[in-house]
Amino acid sequence: MPLLPRRFERLKAVLNRRMGDLTVVLEHVDKPHNLSAILRSCDAVGVLEAHVVSLAGRTPTFNCTSKGSEKWVPLHRHSDGASVALLRQLKDQGFRLYGTHLSVEAVDYRQCDFTGPSALVLGAEKWGLSAEAAALVDQPIVIPMHGMVQSLNVSVACATLLFEALRQRQVAGVLPSHGEGVPAGRYESLLFEWA
Amino acid sequence: MPLLPRRFERLKAVLNRRMGDLTVVLEHVDKPHNLSAILRSCDAVGVLEAHVVSLAGRTPTFNCTSKGSEKWVPLHRHSDGASVALLRQLKDQGFRLYGTHLSVEAVDYRQCDFTGPSALVLGAEKWGLSAEAAALVDQPIVIPMHGMVQSLNVSVACATLLFEALRQRQVAGVLPSHGEGVPAGRYESLLFEWA
Ligand SMILES: C[S@@+](CC[C@H](N)C(=O)[O-])C[C@H]1O[C@@H](n2cnc3c(N)ncnc32)[C@H](O)[C@@H]1O
Ligand SMILES: C[S@@+](CC[C@H](N)C(=O)[O-])C[C@H]1O[C@@H](n2cnc3c(N)ncnc32)[C@H](O)[C@@H]1O
Repeated sequence: MPLLPRRFERLKAVLNRRMGDLTVVLEHVDKPHNLSAILRSCDAVGVLEAHVVSLAGRTPTFNCTSKGSEKWVPLHRHSDGASVALLRQLKDQGFRLYGTHLSVEAVDYRQCDFTGPSALVLGAEKWGLSAEAAALVDQPIVIPMHGMVQSLNVSVACATLLFEALRQRQVAGVLPSHGEGVPAGRYESLLFEWA
Repeated sequence: MPLLPRRFERLKAVLNRRMGDLTVVLEHVDKPHNLSAILRSCDAVGVLEAHVVSLAGRTPTFNCTSKGSEKWVPLHRHSDGASVALLRQLKDQGFRLYGTHLSVEAVDYRQCDFTGPSALVLGAEKWGLSAEAAALVDQPIVIPMHGMVQSLNVSVACATLLFEALRQRQVAGVLPSHGEGVPAGRYESLLFEWA
C-alpha cells in the first residue's frame, strides 16, 4: 500500500518530537496491561525507546490496550541477569538513573531535574526494584503518598514521572521539535520502519 | 481487636489531608484493574470520595491491585441513567466539572485551575464520555498527546490530572492539613468506619 503524504507528514511530526534522552527501564514489570499502558504513555510523552528486564522464561507481552504503541516505541528486551549491565551502559551513555526506590533517602520527584538525559527505573508490581538495581541508581526518587496505601500502580507511577519530565522540559524550553532529539542515523531508519 | 494508638494516629493523619472538593466521576469505566489503579491514585492524592456510573447489569469490581484502597476512598455507585442527575448535583454543590472530552474546544489540562472545587469526569475505556455528560461539563480538557496513539489508558489519564491538581494546590498553599477538607460531620463518621 503506498503511503499517503498526509500519513508520512504525521510520522515525521511525531519523530521530530521524540526524545532519545528520556527513557524508562522496567525491571520485571510483566503484566500485559501495565506494559501496554506504559508504552502508551511513552508514546504520548515522546519517549524514543524503552527497556524491559524480564525474569527468566517470561516474554513481555502487550494486550489490545497498548493501541499498537509497541510499534511506535521500541522496547528493548534484556534477560534477567542483564539488569546491571544495562544500567551501567545507560550511565556510560550519560543517563542519570532515577530509581523509584521507596527508601529513606528517596527525594520527592518534583525536586529532581529531568531536563538532562534521564532514565526512570521502575520495579516489579510486587517486589519493587531489585537490590542490585537500587544500588546502581544515581538518585532514589519517590512520588509522595498522602493516603493509606503505600504505593501506586506501576503504570500510574511511570506516567506521573514522565509527565513531570515533560512539564519540566516544556518550561525549560528544551523540547525537540525538528528531530534533534533522535540520534544521528536513527531518524531515517525509524521512519523507514514506521512507514 | 483493639486499635493501636499508632494506627489511630495514622488514620487521623490521612483524614486530616483528605480533600472533599476534589473528586472524580468515572462514566462506564469498568475494568477491575483500571478501577483499582484509579482508587489507589485517589487515595495517594487525598481524594475524599469518588463516583462511578455503571452500565445496566454491571457492578464495579476491584482486584487485588487496589491494595484495599476501596476501603479508604468511598466509591459512590450510580446507575446508568443517573449520569446527568449526578453531574447536576455536583454542579449544585459548587463543583466545576472538567470533562476529558477530546474535542476541538478542549484546553490543555495545565491551563486549568484545579485549586477550586473540581470534579474530573472520565470516560469509558472504549467510548470516552457520553454525549449527555460531555454536554454538561463546564470545561472540556485534554492531556496533549505528542505521539501516534490518540489516547492514554484511563487510569493513567486520571492520575495525570489528579497529580496536576495536587501540584497546583500545593503551589497555591491550599492543601488541607487538619481535616478542614472534610465536610462537617463526615470526619467522625469516616474515622469510625476506618477504625
Ligand atoms: C507496586 S510498586 C512496588 C511496591 C513494592 N511493594 C515496593 O515496596 O517497592 C511497583 C513499582 O511502581 C513504582 N511506584 C509505585 N509507587 C511509587 C511511588 N509512590 N513513587 C515512585 N515509584 C512508585 C515503583 O517503580 C515500584 O517499583
Ligand atoms: C481510552 S480513553 C477513550 C478513548 C475514546 N476512543 C475517545 O475517543 O474518547 C478513556 C478515557 O481516558 C481519558 N483520557 C485518555 N486520554 C486522555 C487525554 N489525552 N486527555 C484527557 N483524558 C484522556 C478520558 O477520560 C477518556 O474518556
